[in-house]
Amino acid sequence: MKTISTNRSFGGTQGVYEHDAQATKTPMRFSVYVPDAAKDARLPVVMFLSGLTCTEQNFTTKAGAQRAASEHGLILLAPDTSPRVEGVADDEDYDLGQGAGFYVNATEAPWSAHYRMYDYVTSELIDLVRTHFAADVDRLGVMGHSMGGHGALVVALKDPERFKSVSAFAPICHPSVVPWGKKAFAAYLGADEAAWRAYDACALIEGGARQSKILVDQGAADNFLADGQLRPEDLEAACAAAGQPLELHRREGYDHSYYFIAPFVDAHLAHHAAILKA
Amino acid sequence: MKTISTNRSFGGTQGVYEHDAQATKTPMRFSVYVPDAAKDARLPVVMFLSGLTCTEQNFTTKAGAQRAASEHGLILLAPDTSPRVEGVADDEDYDLGQGAGFYVNATEAPWSAHYRMYDYVTSELIDLVRTHFAADVDRLGVMGHSMGGHGALVVALKDPERFKSVSAFAPICHPSVVPWGKKAFAAYLGADEAAWRAYDACALIEGGARQSKILVDQGAADNFLADGQLRPEDLEAACAAAGQPLELHRREGYDHSYYFIAPFVDAHLAHHAAILKA
Repeated sequence: MKTISTNRSFGGTQGVYEHDAQATKTPMRFSVYVPDAAKDARLPVVMFLSGLTCTEQNFTTKAGAQRAASEHGLILLAPDTSPRVEGVADDEDYDLGQGAGFYVNATEAPWSAHYRMYDYVTSELIDLVRTHFAADVDRLGVMGHSMGGHGALVVALKDPERFKSVSAFAPICHPSVVPWGKKAFAAYLGADEAAWRAYDACALIEGGARQSKILVDQGAADNFLADGQLRPEDLEAACAAAGQPLELHRREGYDHSYYFIAPFVDAHLAHHAAILKA
Repeated sequence: MKTISTNRSFGGTQGVYEHDAQATKTPMRFSVYVPDAAKDARLPVVMFLSGLTCTEQNFTTKAGAQRAASEHGLILLAPDTSPRVEGVADDEDYDLGQGAGFYVNATEAPWSAHYRMYDYVTSELIDLVRTHFAADVDRLGVMGHSMGGHGALVVALKDPERFKSVSAFAPICHPSVVPWGKKAFAAYLGADEAAWRAYDACALIEGGARQSKILVDQGAADNFLADGQLRPEDLEAACAAAGQPLELHRREGYDHSYYFIAPFVDAHLAHHAAILKA
């Protein structure tokens, strides 16, 4: 593991690191924020999964999450959104290929060679963080934004033993039925929509998957909400039908940007802290 | 004035705007954050002047200042750091020309045609903001970072009637004697160092300029501090000799980045609010 940068912030250390990932067979970058409280004890970890086009930098530089993480004594972990080096399959559209891994293990060529982001973020990266930082990965939560909100819901619902808490900003709640998800899943997972259900939060809940209370914030002025890409109403219906606890806030006037994430990230970290430190 | 973008954040509106500036004879972009409290009353304004290479975006997206601005009821104003269009004089170095206006009125060719950032930020931009926003510019403060910390100190010391409060992060305190300042002042103001004193915080204080208490934060692990570009000790000496109140904090482990600004920006805005709302 190579250190790209470290910066002191809010009484802790914000680092960016790179390693050769086995899951993707590429170098991968990620950011880790470690509060100074980690000098005395291993701390719970909250992983943030980012949205389309993002790298590990967007959340790290724009969300302002380090302040609340330091106060709660939480390590923040933010991976990149896909393998991202020359020679790895890509697409000229922003919503497929590099920057758009959708947190699945691709089964279809050419994507299957490197696009194994599900294994990467749920297993390899967690093991790496446990090895190199004062992280208690038995107290692990996950949050995310948009494509990464989808990712957070899916990894948490598929493995509630590993991920104890979950929240999302403007998640793609029902990817199997919206343009972004249908395009990505068809490419990565193939034409058989049955395979898509393993990576669809609504389908997972319908299929019996459960989690601790899911916290979601959704901007009411989000253009991707208006475009039908996000469908929080489908998540509400699935949770209501299944008895899965959900706290969903629609925020008047807020859009899809980090200007929407920053005001509500403190409440999300408080949600994770309440569960992980209980 | 053209609206480039608006985003709701922290119970207010973060906008980016562009206008044809008379001072620079170019289009100029700037950002304005307006808390909703401005619907009921004109609010005090704090202008943030950014450092070398920055635009209006850096402070706006990375400092996390909107939260405290909303709490205090302060409008935030962040201009670009220079004229920045094709045809305007530039230099291939990052510390001269576009992105490096140093908040002076250049007197030397080719810079004098467009590099009139002192007039722009102290007069034209303030008038524009008063016209288009619910801004009470009789309650105006200024803060800045690095080159913009220099700018904040200088504009505040030169016109304490206009700027009632001032603070800075890692300012270039004594530009006339450090490499960044000597290079920029020689280009913009010419070889006669007597002309430089009008834009040098230490020289202004020595010459009798005064302000309300100056608040400065300086990272102790700042590489530009080690390189001798910043010289807070010279500001301390000038203030001590002149009886100018100064509160200067050296922050162990912190560097020159926005990871250093974000943790201390709340205290800076509290400093401005205490003076502007007294």
